[in-house]
Amino acid sequence: QESQAPLWERYADHGGIRFVINAEHPLVASLCTKLSSDDATSLRVLLDSISAALPVEMIYSDYSTHPREVSQTAADHDQALDRLRSLKQLLYGDGPGDPQAFLRIVLSTHLFDGQIEMTEKFIAEAFA
Amino acid sequence: QESQAPLWERYADHGGIRFVINAEHPLVASLCTKLSSDDATSLRVLLDSISAALPVEMIYSDYSTHPREVSQTAADHDQALDRLRSLKQLLYGDGPGDPQAFLRIVLSTHLFDGQIEMTEKFIAEAFA
Repeated sequence: QESQAPLWERYADHGGIRFVINAEHPLVASLCTKLSSDDATSLRVLLDSISAALPVEMIYSDYSTHPREVSQTAADHDQALDRLRSLKQLLYGDGPGDPQAFLRIVLSTHLFDGQIEMTEKFIAEAFA
Repeated sequence: QESQAPLWERYADHGGIRFVINAEHPLVASLCTKLSSDDATSLRVLLDSISAALPVEMIYSDYSTHPREVSQTAADHDQALDRLRSLKQLLYGDGPGDPQAFLRIVLSTHLFDGQIEMTEKFIAEAFA
């Protein structure tokens, strides 16, 4: 169901294997268009830093010893509605927007894993 | 030498092990203060999404089969000076700034790993 481009991309080439944040992802692209040129450049340098500083050895070490305990999704029911509203505002402002595209983008964030019913209910109401 | 707080933090508690972007890191905090309230909220949701969507299984799988090939730092000499200027502008604007603190923050990004001489030369000149 997640056919939206992912937030993280894996590159494998002569330089090795790298995991990089997808700068073309709609959330990144939308935020960049709202910022001043200087702030958009800062955001890109921040995202490049987040990729470069990714602690791959530590992730490997934890996952190899405790695979079931490593879980990036901390379902946060209190924040979920606020986050959905914020994502809709970022992507579509006060315009109409596309509920199917929105669902795909929302799934790609993995912020709402395990809360799919609530997410679909929000979309049905917010895009009515 | 890197005593600056890292960009990624590892949490281990009853909910398991999680890797989360440090929202208190000076780059994140500085960018947030420059943005409107809505855009700062969007940035936080984006950073939470980047953490939630981190492909830990894929990282584990690659690292376990090709440990030497996984390398997040793609030294980019062409962009290095522009990135250093952008980081200095984001953190200190046109003010004086602290060269020691700046070096620690720069190291924490891992964007300039392997380019320490060039980095120190930039700092010596830019903070003269």
